[in-house]
Amino acid sequence: MTVDRILPTDEAHDLLDLATELADRELAPKAAGFEERGEFPREVLRTLGRAGLLGLPYPEEHGGAAQPYEVYLQVLEILASRWLAVAEAVSVHTLSCYPVAQFGTDEQRKLLPDMIGGELLGAYCLSEPQGGSDAAALTTKAVRDGDAYVVSGTKAWITHARVADFYNIFCRTGGPGPKGISCLLADRATPGIHPQAAERTMGLHSSPVAQIAFDDARVPADRLIGGEGMGFTIAMSALDSGRLGIAACAVGLAQAALDYAVGYARERQQFGSAIIDFQGLGFSLADAATQISAARALTLAAARLRDAGRPYSIEAAKAKLFATDMAMRVTTDAVQVLGGAGYVADHPVERYMREAKVLQIVEGTNQIQRLVISRALAKGH
Amino acid sequence: MTVDRILPTDEAHDLLDLATELADRELAPKAAGFEERGEFPREVLRTLGRAGLLGLPYPEEHGGAAQPYEVYLQVLEILASRWLAVAEAVSVHTLSCYPVAQFGTDEQRKLLPDMIGGELLGAYCLSEPQGGSDAAALTTKAVRDGDAYVVSGTKAWITHARVADFYNIFCRTGGPGPKGISCLLADRATPGIHPQAAERTMGLHSSPVAQIAFDDARVPADRLIGGEGMGFTIAMSALDSGRLGIAACAVGLAQAALDYAVGYARERQQFGSAIIDFQGLGFSLADAATQISAARALTLAAARLRDAGRPYSIEAAKAKLFATDMAMRVTTDAVQVLGGAGYVADHPVERYMREAKVLQIVEGTNQIQRLVISRALAKGH
Amino acid sequence: MTVDRILPTDEAHDLLDLATELADRELAPKAAGFEERGEFPREVLRTLGRAGLLGLPYPEEHGGAAQPYEVYLQVLEILASRWLAVAEAVSVHTLSCYPVAQFGTDEQRKLLPDMIGGELLGAYCLSEPQGGSDAAALTTKAVRDGDAYVVSGTKAWITHARVADFYNIFCRTGGPGPKGISCLLADRATPGIHPQAAERTMGLHSSPVAQIAFDDARVPADRLIGGEGMGFTIAMSALDSGRLGIAACAVGLAQAALDYAVGYARERQQFGSAIIDFQGLGFSLADAATQISAARALTLAAARLRDAGRPYSIEAAKAKLFATDMAMRVTTDAVQVLGGAGYVADHPVERYMREAKVLQIVEGTNQIQRLVISRALAKGH
Amino acid sequence: MTVDRILPTDEAHDLLDLATELADRELAPKAAGFEERGEFPREVLRTLGRAGLLGLPYPEEHGGAAQPYEVYLQVLEILASRWLAVAEAVSVHTLSCYPVAQFGTDEQRKLLPDMIGGELLGAYCLSEPQGGSDAAALTTKAVRDGDAYVVSGTKAWITHARVADFYNIFCRTGGPGPKGISCLLADRATPGIHPQAAERTMGLHSSPVAQIAFDDARVPADRLIGGEGMGFTIAMSALDSGRLGIAACAVGLAQAALDYAVGYARERQQFGSAIIDFQGLGFSLADAATQISAARALTLAAARLRDAGRPYSIEAAKAKLFATDMAMRVTTDAVQVLGGAGYVADHPVERYMREAKVLQIVEGTNQIQRLVISRALAKGH
Repeated sequence: MTVDRILPTDEAHDLLDLATELADRELAPKAAGFEERGEFPREVLRTLGRAGLLGLPYPEEHGGAAQPYEVYLQVLEILASRWLAVAEAVSVHTLSCYPVAQFGTDEQRKLLPDMIGGELLGAYCLSEPQGGSDAAALTTKAVRDGDAYVVSGTKAWITHARVADFYNIFCRTGGPGPKGISCLLADRATPGIHPQAAERTMGLHSSPVAQIAFDDARVPADRLIGGEGMGFTIAMSALDSGRLGIAACAVGLAQAALDYAVGYARERQQFGSAIIDFQGLGFSLADAATQISAARALTLAAARLRDAGRPYSIEAAKAKLFATDMAMRVTTDAVQVLGGAGYVADHPVERYMREAKVLQIVEGTNQIQRLVISRALAKGH
Repeated sequence: MTVDRILPTDEAHDLLDLATELADRELAPKAAGFEERGEFPREVLRTLGRAGLLGLPYPEEHGGAAQPYEVYLQVLEILASRWLAVAEAVSVHTLSCYPVAQFGTDEQRKLLPDMIGGELLGAYCLSEPQGGSDAAALTTKAVRDGDAYVVSGTKAWITHARVADFYNIFCRTGGPGPKGISCLLADRATPGIHPQAAERTMGLHSSPVAQIAFDDARVPADRLIGGEGMGFTIAMSALDSGRLGIAACAVGLAQAALDYAVGYARERQQFGSAIIDFQGLGFSLADAATQISAARALTLAAARLRDAGRPYSIEAAKAKLFATDMAMRVTTDAVQVLGGAGYVADHPVERYMREAKVLQIVEGTNQIQRLVISRALAKGH
Repeated sequence: MTVDRILPTDEAHDLLDLATELADRELAPKAAGFEERGEFPREVLRTLGRAGLLGLPYPEEHGGAAQPYEVYLQVLEILASRWLAVAEAVSVHTLSCYPVAQFGTDEQRKLLPDMIGGELLGAYCLSEPQGGSDAAALTTKAVRDGDAYVVSGTKAWITHARVADFYNIFCRTGGPGPKGISCLLADRATPGIHPQAAERTMGLHSSPVAQIAFDDARVPADRLIGGEGMGFTIAMSALDSGRLGIAACAVGLAQAALDYAVGYARERQQFGSAIIDFQGLGFSLADAATQISAARALTLAAARLRDAGRPYSIEAAKAKLFATDMAMRVTTDAVQVLGGAGYVADHPVERYMREAKVLQIVEGTNQIQRLVISRALAKGH
Repeated sequence: MTVDRILPTDEAHDLLDLATELADRELAPKAAGFEERGEFPREVLRTLGRAGLLGLPYPEEHGGAAQPYEVYLQVLEILASRWLAVAEAVSVHTLSCYPVAQFGTDEQRKLLPDMIGGELLGAYCLSEPQGGSDAAALTTKAVRDGDAYVVSGTKAWITHARVADFYNIFCRTGGPGPKGISCLLADRATPGIHPQAAERTMGLHSSPVAQIAFDDARVPADRLIGGEGMGFTIAMSALDSGRLGIAACAVGLAQAALDYAVGYARERQQFGSAIIDFQGLGFSLADAATQISAARALTLAAARLRDAGRPYSIEAAKAKLFATDMAMRVTTDAVQVLGGAGYVADHPVERYMREAKVLQIVEGTNQIQRLVISRALAKGH
């Protein structure tokens, strides 16, 4: 199914065409195999970087494409419709570039071209084993010692933990609460940074998450981003963007599931007709298509608020909540359309369903999104 | 709650401000009383017409404002958030102007300024008692007799049946099927046009629907719009626009219900706290707010396709389906927020709930929308 | 549609047959008219009383039928399927007999035969204007003065407020909190008891609720039920039974809506077939039928726990929650099956939908039911 | 959480106690490991057989326990709450004993004690690669040749395909349509029966399904069950029982997921409280608990109809539909309660979610259940 998109510029059209072409050529044929082997597609990300798709929202002076979020998110959606793990990697990597791009020193920003170009892959180390949704309570410590910070503690659920070239580490340099948190940028080679075994997740096997143990890892003091105590501000300002990224991934994944289910239902004959012609099935697909369109529209509306410099935090939370709950339902129903065939790995829909679940959890569980929205309502916003 | 809107022009901003001001001043204070008395607010519509809000999408040469549908629909949404019956009247009236504006002769178009100015109110006579969703099967007959068509038959569920100044009558001038249908424009004074008693509807009491009996009503032949056999084409091309109008009404109604429920929940204390601070309630309101934002975004995305001259029929069906199902849920839940108080006429939410139901039914029931969408999927669109 | 029921005794079969016959003869033909006129069917209740249907769960020595709750609830369901207001009146009246039947003195119990026989109709005065779900905080005061209690305060949402012959008044005779609450049994003739104007509710017009102002009403001290401070215990022990009653009403109402919708959909032709043969509609009816069966089974399972003397409070809360949410959905969808016809008073489904809403609110809103259940889970029950 | 059950006999209590004890001792500790290794627990089934749990509904003269279905299903539920694959194996095996037990000759029935005792494990070969839900169209052929039938064709989605000791083969011995179908009972050792590689399913890894190729397999003619042409009748009469079995499995699986999520939510602290104390989470668990109770009650109500010799086909379809849709939702939400932890194999909930999906598909997809129910409604049943 072709999605008819109204885009702001011809350049955006070209970018989406490029993304579609790369997704069809580099992602779609590899997804099933890499997922089955649990192999991280490092080269695919490098290819995307070289094609200019890893730094879409960032300024051109740093190697980015200076695209509005509205455009970036549609690229992400297209990638997600071919291979969620790669889209999620792009989303996380883009997030990992954010602290340096937005708050970094000129010296620090010299890394950006390689980051955005796909040579240096990033990990975003915020969550902790006990912390869950309560980011302000994080306990990983960084103690100043001469010209370095000595970092100790454990981060959890870190995408790219085992393959990243650099890490944004959110850690406590001061007292309790949000004001005691700082953000450090560490190289992979730093002694004392120990990625752990990959988690045995239900899906996204080609982009595993893992814990990282920091065992007195010395990070040069000039790798502090934005000053001591700025960490929480940085994390929070990246959060809303990250949520939009996940929303776009959810839209792409759900679209892939619908397209596959529709294709199957147009071919599959039962009781003498293509099964899509039975209203019971057709109406369920119509509902899925409707929900996907709504999620896409909501996500892009939030992105346009961001692009216009308006407050968009609440709308981003709504987009993340709606799009990921939708993707969970749509992928589950897509399996149903195929019946028994949907339950086996010969078709991708069972994988889509396993992948959808993680989207309801990352970048703030959907309960957290509801909390964000309900608190805004309680304040009369 | 203020909705942050990105509008295409400053003029659009002014129009929405004007609509908001009129809605607050002319609609909001009157709604409950008129609804209780079942009184049609003819003067309110005249006021809207004089203010230029009845012909927003039509060309300026006919007295319209040449606004994109994206803007018109947001005006409609604002009106609906203060008084659904008026917004629905505006939507129906705007639809009633469509055949003449789009397909009319220059002579016929001379009526447009008075239509758009609110002096002449329109009714759109398509449905029939037995016809339901199967418009191509309509049976009202029009037989050419000299310089007139003689119309006989019965139309049903006609908004403005008893108060309109003109009627678009879809009738059969030829053989069976869609090609035998024509569209006539009749004046209220035409002998033989007999509006029946108002239907006893669950809601929308101030804008009742009724059957109209056509008893050999003579409509001048020069009031044929677009040629014999053009009726079905006209009806179908108006349909998608009408669906967008209902979707916008649903968004406005749901927003009104949410705003009222939030206001109540912020004030109402129970077990020592404002009830909005209980997650059980707060999360339900967050879900409602999310669904409203999604419906609005989906509706406006479909409108922008229309404004850009792209096919938008399927997206309009999705918007109508999603927005009206959403409004039904949100208004039902808004009553729940108020508990017993929500069940009585002292608060408007019970009215909102009764009104929401009709939106799932008009302009094609939501089953018909699902049919439209599923057929498009079956064709691979 | 006939429901195939497995009943514990032949007597129960006879009772259900009797209830069905009375419901068909005395309730069904009158419901629409009484509802439209807002007239309370006092004689119908007397007829039910004389037939022995008003005291089904109470001992035979007090004029009851000593039936298990499992049987009583199915009688209630049958009545509700013909006229919800009457079933709800039976449920409330049965509740009103409970304090005397369970906790009353021998002297007080002398009233029971007339209560159960339908000569004396009861009202259950627990809720207050500000109290909402927080019963333990009630403020209506009763001060002992000689051989009477002097009652002052206001009760709200009282079924039968304006037609009852006796009132159970829950009032504060002691300090704050649950232990300061007592229950008095007052005659209608008591000076100082002033029922207020009926509330303008969305539905249940023939059984209106109203506030009651108590203006130094003197209730004889020997009308104290169960001793001072027993009121909260009495109220709480009646609550679970009341919830089961509402659940049964919801099942009956939903069944009526489904039966009507199915009947219509089997007759109504569209596009050349009965509309029930379209899967889109047929599947929606199948879902409704499934939900109704589940609600009935859940309600009766909870009743059997009660009948067996087991704890059933949590299961009653689940039944109330599930059955009433279900009835709201099923009745809303039943209107949809009829399309425009469903929105007008010529068919009963719009009334069913308006009536369903109140069931989600009374006897503890469904939020309260969720609270009850989630607290039990939190305690590991 | 303990489920309070009202059982018909003391014997039933003892059976459920026995089932619980065995489930805790033999199933629970092994489930994760066997599932991970994809190893079929043949010995566990033998243990269940020796304990008398494999033939609960069958007459004592054949080695069964002559238990009502109401009791059998609760045993199944308990097994499913510890290890779905084993419960499903018991359900399939019990189904596989049905043709012989109900329609077999005395000679054939001599096999029953070993079947019911767990020595001989059965497979039920009905589905075919192209057949899907249209059982009457099956194409596997059996041609009479002397004292044997020669079977050729392919069966698909066969539980126990690779581990069964006997196969019920539904095959075409006559013309097209239901009347040409017969049922043969074949030994595993029969030459020409070739189980294929296991399907790579999303879950239930320890009880894989596979295709079976029949390559001129000779089955002795005295292994024909119930006469030529009886196959469809046998299959259909087993179907409803099988649906109840799946419904009971779904209830058990959902209960396991809820219990695990509740246990986690009572321990897990966030923002200073156990997360179960947050209404947002607590209400979602309350909804899950309610849905489980409803599904259990619906399933057992249908079973009691069966036990009473009443028609129960429609109620069995409702139970299968409701319970399995419920299990899908509840297990998905249980993962959500654990957040990231729920997405990894360290906790069983991600497995429960993968397992739930198959229940919506087997024994007639849930679309087929809706078809069965809606057709009954259309006929006025």
